[in-house]
Amino acid sequence: MNDNRPIGVFDSGLGGLTVYKALKEALPDESFVYLGDTARLPYGTKSAETVTQYALQAARRLVEEDIKLLVVACNTASAQALPGLKKALPELPCFGVIEPGARAAAEASSSGHIVVLATEGTVRSEAYPKHIQQYNPQARVHSLACNLLVALVEEGWHEGPEAEAVVSRYFQMLNGVSFDALVLGCTHFPLLKETIRKFLPAETKLVDSATTTAKAVKDYLNGSGKFKKSPRKEEDRFLVTDAPERFRRLAKRFLPGANISAVEQVDPVISR
Amino acid sequence: MNDNRPIGVFDSGLGGLTVYKALKEALPDESFVYLGDTARLPYGTKSAETVTQYALQAARRLVEEDIKLLVVACNTASAQALPGLKKALPELPCFGVIEPGARAAAEASSSGHIVVLATEGTVRSEAYPKHIQQYNPQARVHSLACNLLVALVEEGWHEGPEAEAVVSRYFQMLNGVSFDALVLGCTHFPLLKETIRKFLPAETKLVDSATTTAKAVKDYLNGSGKFKKSPRKEEDRFLVTDAPERFRRLAKRFLPGANISAVEQVDPVISR
Repeated sequence: MNDNRPIGVFDSGLGGLTVYKALKEALPDESFVYLGDTARLPYGTKSAETVTQYALQAARRLVEEDIKLLVVACNTASAQALPGLKKALPELPCFGVIEPGARAAAEASSSGHIVVLATEGTVRSEAYPKHIQQYNPQARVHSLACNLLVALVEEGWHEGPEAEAVVSRYFQMLNGVSFDALVLGCTHFPLLKETIRKFLPAETKLVDSATTTAKAVKDYLNGSGKFKKSPRKEEDRFLVTDAPERFRRLAKRFLPGANISAVEQVDPVISR
Repeated sequence: MNDNRPIGVFDSGLGGLTVYKALKEALPDESFVYLGDTARLPYGTKSAETVTQYALQAARRLVEEDIKLLVVACNTASAQALPGLKKALPELPCFGVIEPGARAAAEASSSGHIVVLATEGTVRSEAYPKHIQQYNPQARVHSLACNLLVALVEEGWHEGPEAEAVVSRYFQMLNGVSFDALVLGCTHFPLLKETIRKFLPAETKLVDSATTTAKAVKDYLNGSGKFKKSPRKEEDRFLVTDAPERFRRLAKRFLPGANISAVEQVDPVISR
């Protein structure tokens, strides 16, 4: 019943490393192959059709690496492409980050008033409100597209007066709506946690999908028995569709202290 | 000798509309076909190889529209892909935005000390220093990668405290270097002109490539006689590789008052 094959993790670029980190902490013996679609990032401003096409190409590339399951570690791709992925690759267990995040948000909120900060594409998909209301049909979800926060994190400016000015303006756009839970609905946003905290009452719960997604994957491995048999020895692999050097450099922002030595470049277009 | 075919204008997305606007003002009788590669934007953080591949696909798509010349209205693509384009399409006259901008900067600066604000890819290419030094071999060019300014403009936040905080931090990174000309080395940046002005002495010259590029194209048409014969009647066409509705909506930021009604979606990959 054991399964020594690696877990595939896919993101448009770097943000998925926050999910990868949580997966490694929850599943220290497993091996991982991470694919960042850096030739086409970001996904947050692109259409559902295009994001689905890109995600499917990435998933097929990871299937070539003989993965046992796929984690779509990108909110936009989870929101827009997960049904398409499951349909195209019915044999491959696929986990997105939206459903676990939505569940955690529904559980964290007492009032049912929840704010979701996400990309334009995730907001447009309405995936968070739909999934949150599965757990709490009375929930009222306010979604806010915050594309600029992605660029802010990639520039490494997650703290300081610029980050505060930008976050402050986004919060002003909520027009004083009250809420007791806030979803960091993009894998870049956990890096802005400290800055976001400054604008919220201490009792507001901050929810990110990384930990709950890792838990969902662990539960699946528990249920299916598909754990890796032997403790991990091999290094995790990192594949990107463009600019491996840039990935290596920026990965340090998402994984402080981690040693990402080998980043391989692969062709983004596997099948069309 | 007249040539009634349209002029092709290509950009990774929306920024090239600032160049399109200058072209229309300089050449009011000409017809234009604009292609924005919105499925793969932005180019500023991608490798020279990938940008060259994308630019070549876009140029070939515009050749199918029977254009008489091509304007690469994107600094990153001009910096990284222009030699490759000219080699692959030797029959097609190609104009980039770097060379005209570099010439304008060299002429605007008395001291020879020039700052270039650009994307990461444009800075890495060193295209501005190289071209500026063709006109003034003594010039000292300080380049600064400002990726976040692109996202700021696309969010529509080109004025206000957030824009000022971000611009201020970039200027701090210049460590007090003195200069008397500043190049807006990305087609998004002219929209930030008012904000950037606030941080500079009144005598500092701001240079953008749009007007000088339009002049270079006009000079070519004068020299070759390939002007359009009859005054324009047909509407300009706008092609995008993804999300036409988003393009139509955001285009208003770049072309206030313009009526961009029909935006057509086309396949980004023409040949591989």
